[in-house]
Amino acid sequence: MQLLTLLSDFGWQDSYVGILKGVILGILPTATIVDLTHGIPPQDIAVARFQLLMAYAYFPPGAIHVAIVDPGVGSQRRAIAVQTENAYFVAPDNGLLSGVLAQQAIVQAVELTNADYWRSASPSTTFHGRDIFAPVAAYLAKGIPIEALGTPIDPASLVQLQFPLRQLSRNTYHGCIQAIDHFGNLITNFPAAFVQGWSWQLQFQQTRYPGQFTYADVRQGSPIGLIGSHGYLELAINRGNAQAILQAEVGDTIELQMSD
Amino acid sequence: MQLLTLLSDFGWQDSYVGILKGVILGILPTATIVDLTHGIPPQDIAVARFQLLMAYAYFPPGAIHVAIVDPGVGSQRRAIAVQTENAYFVAPDNGLLSGVLAQQAIVQAVELTNADYWRSASPSTTFHGRDIFAPVAAYLAKGIPIEALGTPIDPASLVQLQFPLRQLSRNTYHGCIQAIDHFGNLITNFPAAFVQGWSWQLQFQQTRYPGQFTYADVRQGSPIGLIGSHGYLELAINRGNAQAILQAEVGDTIELQMSD
Amino acid sequence: MQLLTLLSDFGWQDSYVGILKGVILGILPTATIVDLTHGIPPQDIAVARFQLLMAYAYFPPGAIHVAIVDPGVGSQRRAIAVQTENAYFVAPDNGLLSGVLAQQAIVQAVELTNADYWRSASPSTTFHGRDIFAPVAAYLAKGIPIEALGTPIDPASLVQLQFPLRQLSRNTYHGCIQAIDHFGNLITNFPAAFVQGWSWQLQFQQTRYPGQFTYADVRQGSPIGLIGSHGYLELAINRGNAQAILQAEVGDTIELQMSD
Repeated sequence: MQLLTLLSDFGWQDSYVGILKGVILGILPTATIVDLTHGIPPQDIAVARFQLLMAYAYFPPGAIHVAIVDPGVGSQRRAIAVQTENAYFVAPDNGLLSGVLAQQAIVQAVELTNADYWRSASPSTTFHGRDIFAPVAAYLAKGIPIEALGTPIDPASLVQLQFPLRQLSRNTYHGCIQAIDHFGNLITNFPAAFVQGWSWQLQFQQTRYPGQFTYADVRQGSPIGLIGSHGYLELAINRGNAQAILQAEVGDTIELQMSD
Repeated sequence: MQLLTLLSDFGWQDSYVGILKGVILGILPTATIVDLTHGIPPQDIAVARFQLLMAYAYFPPGAIHVAIVDPGVGSQRRAIAVQTENAYFVAPDNGLLSGVLAQQAIVQAVELTNADYWRSASPSTTFHGRDIFAPVAAYLAKGIPIEALGTPIDPASLVQLQFPLRQLSRNTYHGCIQAIDHFGNLITNFPAAFVQGWSWQLQFQQTRYPGQFTYADVRQGSPIGLIGSHGYLELAINRGNAQAILQAEVGDTIELQMSD
Repeated sequence: MQLLTLLSDFGWQDSYVGILKGVILGILPTATIVDLTHGIPPQDIAVARFQLLMAYAYFPPGAIHVAIVDPGVGSQRRAIAVQTENAYFVAPDNGLLSGVLAQQAIVQAVELTNADYWRSASPSTTFHGRDIFAPVAAYLAKGIPIEALGTPIDPASLVQLQFPLRQLSRNTYHGCIQAIDHFGNLITNFPAAFVQGWSWQLQFQQTRYPGQFTYADVRQGSPIGLIGSHGYLELAINRGNAQAILQAEVGDTIELQMSD
């Protein structure tokens, strides 16, 4: 199996995503292509970083993840491919990969400088997804070794985008909302492992929300702290939209308080 | 062929749907996966029921339909798989399947209690799509017999969600809007078979709309009663949005009047 | 490989697109199906024309493109299949194909009159996508020759939808916005080839916008004339939405001025 996933801010109104698939299938007709999402807010690298982080681990080893949110397209930002212990990633070097690469040992990273694997040696200045990322990913899926795609780069030089997380005391952490999902759930950057064996609550906007086991533990319309399915603590409202009701945004600060 | 369809209220903004596919392809790399829709309004079982009802019959026999609109996730609601004469359905037991199961003879039904076919014996409390429904459906597609997935249940015990439909006289029925589609067409719960050989009209909000053969039978902007492509009567506006213009909602009552 | 693409105004809220795929896979289980977009504004043939024009060339030769934006469904408008030098197109004859057919030599065109390849000899009056276009395309992908699908028609008789483009002087053209994409970029109908070797600017609503090489050539928030990735000149705003900021619409007139 040659499995590729696609993530972008291209939306679904235009044919852009279809074009990526046409380019890939032209190179590798047997490819299996899965959309992660194309609903990243335009040019929002932080949301793209989280959506990729949340999804990649559920794909079989060797999957190739193509992630294109690329406000720097046409500038000097690097286009890269990274091989980790379990997967491949093809993306602009703008921090989009910094979530997954904090979880995965990097085997090698290259800058995509070898135009032999581009759609054309003269790519457009606005659509590297079509002209560079999609064809490079298809050739990788077809068996071209990653080192053939360009020049090696030092993983330490990759652009970082990390959300601030500080331990204030033995049982208090200061973090933030790193993402908000379709249901309006507020996803913090506190890993679920922090609260294992503790009682806990989230403090957000001067209010404390106790951590519970499941939605059914509170009545409809009540806010609730939960261990999200993605492995981070989240602040949700049972059958309601926490983003709308609490007027929350990505980047808002939040505190985790634990007790024995 | 191992064909699975997915229907949910997950939307496309997040990677949730991509994750379902990653889980399925990890178990069965050759699966063919088709999205029915992921645009069900959050937790709206009634709309999910209709969208599944409208679509399932157009898939080849043996297709496995995974439908996840699950406001009771994490509570005691049952997760089920149902084999009918033509298809398999995997879903929460909350009425979502009651449309299709009213049309199809049930061969067997099981509660998904066998954790061997879950992604993990400790599923999350919020994302059974990923942890239970998707892996169970993939194993079913791979050839695991449905009876291995859990304990048999009595089909008569399945949760029902039916829309009221009454015959008032020989040629008058009282029903309701069971769904509204993307074009704003108002889909009633009057089966098309009712009007075979009759002239007919729909009475909605004190106004009568005559049943016609096709949009072209009325001028642009005119309301029209039609036999919808899904096999139910609908109230539409030629090149217009009936929902917006008539201020209609799912559940609104409507009357069907027929004459020789 | 049997590759089909789908383009429509069906949206993603309903199961309509899933139904098309069910019908296709029922006829040809091994088909590879790619969505171009289903986000065409309802019944907007002009936008559909452009989205198809932008995408088809990136698919391998022999791909079958099914495009369904069909305000005349149920009327006497023709349903057609067209074979060109590189591809097949299946669509209503309403101008939707006039963009691609202006670029591709036509080999043959037929009206879809042979009901043997429809889903049923009595198609619905509202959903020819399901009942005619999808099954016909699947049979074409399965190897049925195009001439078996119906009666030959004269390519010169196909409905045309072209956007006005006039040369006012040696270095001035008068054209229009033929499409607006998801990012709000205004896509003109001036082919990029016009400006090869020239300096150029776009005049829109009494303001002149100089043509540049890439977004990075202007500061954030600045309007910029660009050679779009689709091969037409476009008016964009670096990291902004030109449609919203300039209050532009499809069909608005625009002028191209060039100098040595």
